[in-house]
Amino acid sequence: MAEPRLPLAGLKVLELGHYIAGPFATRLLADMGAEVVKVEPPEGDPIRHWGSKQDGHPVWFSIHGRNKLSVTLDLKNPRDQARLKAMAARADALVENFRPGYLERIGLGPAVLQKENPRLVIARISGYGQDGPYRDKPAFGAIGEAMGGLRHLTANPGQTELPPPRCGISISDDLAGMYAAMSVVSACWGRDAGAGGPGRIIDISLVDSVVSLTEGMLPEYGLTGKIRQPAGAAIPTTAPTNTYPCADGKWLCVAGNSDLIFRRLMAAIGRPELAADPRMADNGGRCANVEELDAAIAGWTRTLPAKEAQDILEAAEVPASRLYDIRDIAEDPHFQARDTVMRVDDPLIGPVLHPAAPFRFDGVAPKDMVRWTGPAAGAHNAQVFKDWLGEEQ
Amino acid sequence: MAEPRLPLAGLKVLELGHYIAGPFATRLLADMGAEVVKVEPPEGDPIRHWGSKQDGHPVWFSIHGRNKLSVTLDLKNPRDQARLKAMAARADALVENFRPGYLERIGLGPAVLQKENPRLVIARISGYGQDGPYRDKPAFGAIGEAMGGLRHLTANPGQTELPPPRCGISISDDLAGMYAAMSVVSACWGRDAGAGGPGRIIDISLVDSVVSLTEGMLPEYGLTGKIRQPAGAAIPTTAPTNTYPCADGKWLCVAGNSDLIFRRLMAAIGRPELAADPRMADNGGRCANVEELDAAIAGWTRTLPAKEAQDILEAAEVPASRLYDIRDIAEDPHFQARDTVMRVDDPLIGPVLHPAAPFRFDGVAPKDMVRWTGPAAGAHNAQVFKDWLGEEQ
Repeated sequence: MAEPRLPLAGLKVLELGHYIAGPFATRLLADMGAEVVKVEPPEGDPIRHWGSKQDGHPVWFSIHGRNKLSVTLDLKNPRDQARLKAMAARADALVENFRPGYLERIGLGPAVLQKENPRLVIARISGYGQDGPYRDKPAFGAIGEAMGGLRHLTANPGQTELPPPRCGISISDDLAGMYAAMSVVSACWGRDAGAGGPGRIIDISLVDSVVSLTEGMLPEYGLTGKIRQPAGAAIPTTAPTNTYPCADGKWLCVAGNSDLIFRRLMAAIGRPELAADPRMADNGGRCANVEELDAAIAGWTRTLPAKEAQDILEAAEVPASRLYDIRDIAEDPHFQARDTVMRVDDPLIGPVLHPAAPFRFDGVAPKDMVRWTGPAAGAHNAQVFKDWLGEEQ
Repeated sequence: MAEPRLPLAGLKVLELGHYIAGPFATRLLADMGAEVVKVEPPEGDPIRHWGSKQDGHPVWFSIHGRNKLSVTLDLKNPRDQARLKAMAARADALVENFRPGYLERIGLGPAVLQKENPRLVIARISGYGQDGPYRDKPAFGAIGEAMGGLRHLTANPGQTELPPPRCGISISDDLAGMYAAMSVVSACWGRDAGAGGPGRIIDISLVDSVVSLTEGMLPEYGLTGKIRQPAGAAIPTTAPTNTYPCADGKWLCVAGNSDLIFRRLMAAIGRPELAADPRMADNGGRCANVEELDAAIAGWTRTLPAKEAQDILEAAEVPASRLYDIRDIAEDPHFQARDTVMRVDDPLIGPVLHPAAPFRFDGVAPKDMVRWTGPAAGAHNAQVFKDWLGEEQ
């Protein structure tokens, strides 16, 4: 089978990663064609023990480790330290997400690695970053979301009985991994095709990654003292857009917040008099009367199952979607037509569903971007030690 | 002032973007040093009318447009179409987020642009992608979150009175923009330093971007039929980690879910007998008794203001953070020490607070990565028409 024409073919990346953020960064690079060697301890990345298993193999790792080569090294053993240095000498980039200072303590800090290879790009992911007063505090993804300002906003206003929920996914790890992937490739472009120069050391933190998405909140606070508060499923500055209850207990998200769409929405729910109401003619008026509008829309959605209400609104060209769970995603005809959800053969656990890589390149089918599924720990020891290090077994 | 040593110096990028996803992609590239020309309609990107203003200027745009050059073009006017084609001939990459088919309809589709410049990398961001049955449906960020599976999970279990909240930010637009940025740079690396070849057309959708973060849910559903359900502020597979109410009405997020940290946590809240309880010795046992643990922790947090409780837990080396709002972020000493939050002079609105770029490169101070703040629409017409097109005014 010919290699698909992937953009990062030829880029060699070492991962000293565990759990989510570091491995997700390199998975994105691997999806784009980079040769990623995941370096694991002999017992494997602890993420392999998370979530459900099939035949003893973790099912998430089929995705989380896909397109990577796995080697096992004991980073405190001198022979394996020498192997890692020799591999660093041949790599374009290295991604790590140990706690700050750990690599230095075991004698594998950036200075040591860049002495082996001055061109090496090193991305370091941590909870709080490589410096600053909180550098050494233990950090978890949840803390990144809390301190980065996301958890405060992900809530219904005034809700006091139940805590503001998490997103349900490890969003701060994901964001940090995505920023690591893009900054690694950017540093490689600069070194290889831009201004040139030696390698780089890149510092990514979970908290910085979350703060980067605070939109205009910082300048607004600094200028006016205004503190953005949670707004539930609504958007405070535009209306009507919210999530409404349906007859079957499901929820329907509706974005009716432009003049044209608003009028179509009111017609579709049988309330044309609200479309004609001068109080509702513009967004400012609709925001001022948002409770009346939300009640009108919810009064209609409560009479219908979510799928049926969605079909009616979509026929009226009003953006709407029920809140998909993973079965809705797996069964959706659009996702099937685009291979956003695809069936992949995993030699360890059989046929499984994978999400497509989130970037599509012309001439490359999504299925061809999954070259292989997440391997067992150390599955590629012999291959990598031979190809990268010239060791004969 | 010398240009800071930024990795994408020399990369020329055109933005045909509006609102969030496309402009966020190019802002990340601009933060890393790319020369980004934002092409706006004569009346400006409509995002300029969102949120609060100072002296008539939108405050978010100080960040959202930073490090970019702004030119105004009427893309339906033949003279400006010729300008855009001539600029495309000189660019490395172009990012657009019109509805699918729009650029083709006005005669500026990828085939036309790549005829001007076969090396041009074109990233197209849309709600549902450039093909598939939903391609032409109107898409909003909220719909991407709903259909991508995020809204279903961002909720408290069994909650029926209040709708599952949004994240409070435009997360699906942000994710799509981040994927666009990384795939554009990857395509440029492949073209300029990797396997070579012509430009690429990249297809990014909001829904694919959200689905990409569903962790192991797809293989798990396919193998076992299990549908991941919302879990509020907890993580279903590990305990105790949750968000707890404090005496001052604030919330405290605590991650006490490892054997060692759990014992420190129980000691800190004055419940050492739970640390010694054999039922709580491992994660499985703690998950089975999570209600008892959550009640014990909440019983303690309710007696203290959030800041004080956090200080006690941190002294005991238990990861904890109250839910920061934007004032907490602006005033935090760690964020100030690292310039995660920095004061920037904006010539249009005065000194404002900006978040740092979420990637730090050694030798480049975060403040030097903000070369200038978001400009007025068309502020760089003369400069760009001269530098890129050789027009003399």
